[in-house]
Amino acid sequence: MQNDDVNHDTVEHGMQPEDTPELRALYQSFQDNHMNPLWTQTGDLMPMHPKPQAVPHVWKWSTLLPLAEASGRLVPVGRGGERRAIGLANPGLGGNTYISPTLWAAIQYLGPRETAPEHRHSQNAFRFVVEGEGVWTVVNGDPVRMSRGDLLLTPGWCFHGHHNDRDAPMAWLDGLDIPFSQQMDVGFFEFGSDSVTDYATPNFSRGERLWCHPGLRPVSQLNDTVASPIGAYRWEFTDRALTEQLLLEDEGQPATVDPGHAAIRYTNPTTGGDVMPTIRCQFHRLRAGTQTPDRREVGSSVFQVFEGAGAVVLNGERHRLDKGDLFVVPSWVSWSLEAEEQFDLFRFSDAPIMERLGFMRTQVGDT
Amino acid sequence: MQNDDVNHDTVEHGMQPEDTPELRALYQSFQDNHMNPLWTQTGDLMPMHPKPQAVPHVWKWSTLLPLAEASGRLVPVGRGGERRAIGLANPGLGGNTYISPTLWAAIQYLGPRETAPEHRHSQNAFRFVVEGEGVWTVVNGDPVRMSRGDLLLTPGWCFHGHHNDRDAPMAWLDGLDIPFSQQMDVGFFEFGSDSVTDYATPNFSRGERLWCHPGLRPVSQLNDTVASPIGAYRWEFTDRALTEQLLLEDEGQPATVDPGHAAIRYTNPTTGGDVMPTIRCQFHRLRAGTQTPDRREVGSSVFQVFEGAGAVVLNGERHRLDKGDLFVVPSWVSWSLEAEEQFDLFRFSDAPIMERLGFMRTQVGDT
Amino acid sequence: MQNDDVNHDTVEHGMQPEDTPELRALYQSFQDNHMNPLWTQTGDLMPMHPKPQAVPHVWKWSTLLPLAEASGRLVPVGRGGERRAIGLANPGLGGNTYISPTLWAAIQYLGPRETAPEHRHSQNAFRFVVEGEGVWTVVNGDPVRMSRGDLLLTPGWCFHGHHNDRDAPMAWLDGLDIPFSQQMDVGFFEFGSDSVTDYATPNFSRGERLWCHPGLRPVSQLNDTVASPIGAYRWEFTDRALTEQLLLEDEGQPATVDPGHAAIRYTNPTTGGDVMPTIRCQFHRLRAGTQTPDRREVGSSVFQVFEGAGAVVLNGERHRLDKGDLFVVPSWVSWSLEAEEQFDLFRFSDAPIMERLGFMRTQVGDT
Amino acid sequence: MQNDDVNHDTVEHGMQPEDTPELRALYQSFQDNHMNPLWTQTGDLMPMHPKPQAVPHVWKWSTLLPLAEASGRLVPVGRGGERRAIGLANPGLGGNTYISPTLWAAIQYLGPRETAPEHRHSQNAFRFVVEGEGVWTVVNGDPVRMSRGDLLLTPGWCFHGHHNDRDAPMAWLDGLDIPFSQQMDVGFFEFGSDSVTDYATPNFSRGERLWCHPGLRPVSQLNDTVASPIGAYRWEFTDRALTEQLLLEDEGQPATVDPGHAAIRYTNPTTGGDVMPTIRCQFHRLRAGTQTPDRREVGSSVFQVFEGAGAVVLNGERHRLDKGDLFVVPSWVSWSLEAEEQFDLFRFSDAPIMERLGFMRTQVGDT
Repeated sequence: MQNDDVNHDTVEHGMQPEDTPELRALYQSFQDNHMNPLWTQTGDLMPMHPKPQAVPHVWKWSTLLPLAEASGRLVPVGRGGERRAIGLANPGLGGNTYISPTLWAAIQYLGPRETAPEHRHSQNAFRFVVEGEGVWTVVNGDPVRMSRGDLLLTPGWCFHGHHNDRDAPMAWLDGLDIPFSQQMDVGFFEFGSDSVTDYATPNFSRGERLWCHPGLRPVSQLNDTVASPIGAYRWEFTDRALTEQLLLEDEGQPATVDPGHAAIRYTNPTTGGDVMPTIRCQFHRLRAGTQTPDRREVGSSVFQVFEGAGAVVLNGERHRLDKGDLFVVPSWVSWSLEAEEQFDLFRFSDAPIMERLGFMRTQVGDT
Repeated sequence: MQNDDVNHDTVEHGMQPEDTPELRALYQSFQDNHMNPLWTQTGDLMPMHPKPQAVPHVWKWSTLLPLAEASGRLVPVGRGGERRAIGLANPGLGGNTYISPTLWAAIQYLGPRETAPEHRHSQNAFRFVVEGEGVWTVVNGDPVRMSRGDLLLTPGWCFHGHHNDRDAPMAWLDGLDIPFSQQMDVGFFEFGSDSVTDYATPNFSRGERLWCHPGLRPVSQLNDTVASPIGAYRWEFTDRALTEQLLLEDEGQPATVDPGHAAIRYTNPTTGGDVMPTIRCQFHRLRAGTQTPDRREVGSSVFQVFEGAGAVVLNGERHRLDKGDLFVVPSWVSWSLEAEEQFDLFRFSDAPIMERLGFMRTQVGDT
Repeated sequence: MQNDDVNHDTVEHGMQPEDTPELRALYQSFQDNHMNPLWTQTGDLMPMHPKPQAVPHVWKWSTLLPLAEASGRLVPVGRGGERRAIGLANPGLGGNTYISPTLWAAIQYLGPRETAPEHRHSQNAFRFVVEGEGVWTVVNGDPVRMSRGDLLLTPGWCFHGHHNDRDAPMAWLDGLDIPFSQQMDVGFFEFGSDSVTDYATPNFSRGERLWCHPGLRPVSQLNDTVASPIGAYRWEFTDRALTEQLLLEDEGQPATVDPGHAAIRYTNPTTGGDVMPTIRCQFHRLRAGTQTPDRREVGSSVFQVFEGAGAVVLNGERHRLDKGDLFVVPSWVSWSLEAEEQFDLFRFSDAPIMERLGFMRTQVGDT
Repeated sequence: MQNDDVNHDTVEHGMQPEDTPELRALYQSFQDNHMNPLWTQTGDLMPMHPKPQAVPHVWKWSTLLPLAEASGRLVPVGRGGERRAIGLANPGLGGNTYISPTLWAAIQYLGPRETAPEHRHSQNAFRFVVEGEGVWTVVNGDPVRMSRGDLLLTPGWCFHGHHNDRDAPMAWLDGLDIPFSQQMDVGFFEFGSDSVTDYATPNFSRGERLWCHPGLRPVSQLNDTVASPIGAYRWEFTDRALTEQLLLEDEGQPATVDPGHAAIRYTNPTTGGDVMPTIRCQFHRLRAGTQTPDRREVGSSVFQVFEGAGAVVLNGERHRLDKGDLFVVPSWVSWSLEAEEQFDLFRFSDAPIMERLGFMRTQVGDT
């Protein structure tokens, strides 16, 4: 399919009219009246396959973390800016803080005993903790502990603030659908309490206590919800699920995605579907020595290395990866993972958008 | 609504024609040609509200268990009869082994080292263990431990057999949709292995290892299934979920169904819906002293006391209940539970049938 | 699959215990305590394939219509009996007015200027008109003309009455889910006006005027409904749809179910699904000379010949059919239609029950 | 809600750190490493309510049509440019041919006997004909007549080309989701035949003949489809549906959206939902003198006047409208229609995107 582009670009010029004064006058009239002819732009508007402006890119944790720490020293946190978060800006997207056309990824940093005030917005958000602990995020009044390996949800229009209960700072990954909501003009925002509404520091949130029992649903909560009612997906469970998949594979049972490649999707227990309407979250574990087949998908994904070391090959270019490193896979860019040792990666993507709107396609291997 | 019946019965006779030879000849012709006039039967065919032939009834565990044990001594288990199961026959249903028009409930008993051979059928089945352990049910080749408080599923058309790995017998509750399938003519049956296909006795089945991680779904298993892929819902999780609901209630949080009344529904994690298309399974826990409001529902339910003591009031009549006791609530019969001490009950019903076909109605209190 | 039954019946007796006094005492205790052993009844409870008590049967219109006319002379219509309807009683179902375990089919007859009073019930109902006109059915206050070839809906819990605006009597087919609702204990009933609430005789009902525009939905009616909001499916549209399918087949386009066999399903425009939660309605047209392949389905169907002549082969037995004739196909009975001339048949079935509850199976041909 | 913006903008600066050399160095490091701080941009990224760059705008048909005609004289149609289409470029969107962030609207012009060659693309498309006739669009080989008032669909990945069978030119409105697909990187494209594959000019397409019978579904086509199988929604049906709504309103029946305001939604008959996954199509009719209440919605809409005259008030500014005029309503811009005489408007929007992703909100009146 890729080679058709040449053909397309050549053919593109077949319809061009002769350059005459009348044509120039017509084009001027178009411009005066906010009109553009299709015939001068087809190739760009409708490429043979997705040609994202976003580019594949890797951010090293060894660079990100010190800059987040420096921000902690230099920048106060509070009302207005709301969060001490540093967004990853895709080099292809013109300086916008978009890691892809749909997704936002940022490192948020909270110093000892600091509080990030409460607010809510239409944008869906999550946090993933690659290291550290001691912060509680308070979501609609429910304090949720944040610890290493946990995925914490803040679905659209839930009030939320964070506070650090410890004497050590903490950094984590924030993921949102800000670029989508900004470009599509869907966002609302509302301020909440300047502090968090509950400074309690329970080990388990009320959402977990109500919902985190496998296959069990409270009879008091039978209405399906747009986003998952589980506020925290704990590392203990993720790790166990992946461990079991690899053990089952050892026993000859179908359990993994590819040989040596275990993966779980975080889901909304009221529907079995994605945790939020725009964002898919998954966790992948590769055995040492595993290499996944080349894969292309419509839509964009962001990965963060949680543990282990390896590499990713993005459109044929190999990038070595260590703990905490992040990379983005724009639409239809081929990707393959290689594990030097057991390799654990958190992943989020805009796949629910693509699937719900009928645009998803996947290509595995050279086809 | 109840009082309208009088009116209905009175009115019913308004349309009766005069008894003449011509009318008798007409009625004879109807009979000869397999026809029945509606006007002689409206009240029965279309009552003002459900008037089940099934009656409320309580079976005492202290009666059931010794009879099951006697069966263990006198009746071999094996191919043909297939199961040493004793069905509870609703006294209103003319001797059929139907606990309600849709549901089957039986005590199954397996002696030391015995095997119940494999087969499969369209009928959906589950087992619930009120006491004992040592049996494994093998479902589509996956051995599933059966222990006290566990709910074990055998959805329609899955091969299954059981074997007792111990020197002590074991009894449990079987629930199926046999009456529904028999009356509606939907059942298929197929014999499988005369023994079970895998005599391993693992603590956890492969289905549990793949699926019992709260909110996590294997990426290798993204197709939704008609019935739950979880073969075993362990007591540990059920107990914890109920405990948390009552603790949350203590903290002033919405978590319980009624004050002092915690309840969970067992669900299919691929959809968030019921475990099987025809059978709903729930577990209820009442604090000591709790009395639930009178409730009527379309469709029938069966309860088994798991722990504690109390009573049920069925259409105004109070029945005392002890551990293991079973009772059936036919359609539109009012029921209310009373807890003398903490009172745990397993419940199954045909509610998915009623809801999927648009017939469900519920009435709470005196209204 | 059919031959396994022998095997099944043989095997069935493998588990029978020796007849001893102890066993007899046990069996007596079972009976005293409303219990039945499974091992004495497996073959009946769980057959190798559906073995309905209902039998295939044909009712001749030439018999039915005169009996309906005689009823018109001898039996008044009015409150109590509510309807002058004569139900078709499946010869295998013990005298119950059930044409199958789920379905009711009756000939309703309304004399000149008569009114059948209003009521409503949980049971879903439709009428199909094989000949005649002049009656209006008033559904939730909306008068709906009944004419030859029309399908008229009265979904559960809609008030409805009928009145004959002409000087000639009229007869039609009523279809309901009475047997299902009676056996499953789901029915409620309420009396309405003793006359119909609106004696207007418009050509088109309000429901048609709002909804019968292909692919168009009123923006004021965006909530999906359990049953179709279309009260009348007119013959003109059914005929045209079938005609077009056969013309498209002539043009080599995919349009028919089998060669020479056109068919439409009546649907709920808010969902694209069946018109009512328990009843599927279809219309079939066969070209002269067409014979459909043998087909078995779970669930039961009723057909009425609308026009033309031909035959049906039911479990190998051929029955000749003329206009107005009705026949029932119980679950898993094989059926095949033969058209002597262009052959039009209305059909209704309980397929939505079977599909929604996961029991549907179909077998085409000898497999 | 609107007034909170001031507050937001004020508060926004609360978190700004002191400008020091260290801070500048930090900001430089951010830039060097493709990172952006959130605290300098919150107000823009997360406004209090949608603040689209797109602006409300009206294009006059009296301007558009002559420019399309001039294009017909000066620009050939054919492979490469593919279509003689002139896109409407929202003045707020920087010269992109986007009428909104999600939608594309263009005037396409086809001269006498011309052919626009076949291709297909992931983008969903429709055509709406405000005047003229004589062109057939061939969709997956099915020739579809285009006449005044018709809506013609070309869902994603269907091959399509057009040819003008007459000696007069024809112009129409094209609507697509090009901006969405371009920004979200979801588009694939493939060339087809250089001419159209079938030059037949039937009055009705095969899709219409199979599907355009109200409430009837071919039994050969029971799989639901992502987009509507109806290729043409004819003006005759749209007009009749709207006429009936206003007549029903005259009779005191609920049928219209607001008093004097009839509206239909074009739907996919397999689901009852929108015609395509990203685009909603509706038609609105106002009685003379009707004024609709102010309304704000998330997402963008485009209207074209089909008949009559009136005005639209967009964010408080009144624009007079005549036949053929087009206007765009960006997200959360208030709009109200006024009818001088009976006023007919076609409308399309991105509402399915907003609803499927959980972002839809509507505000009616001053609230």
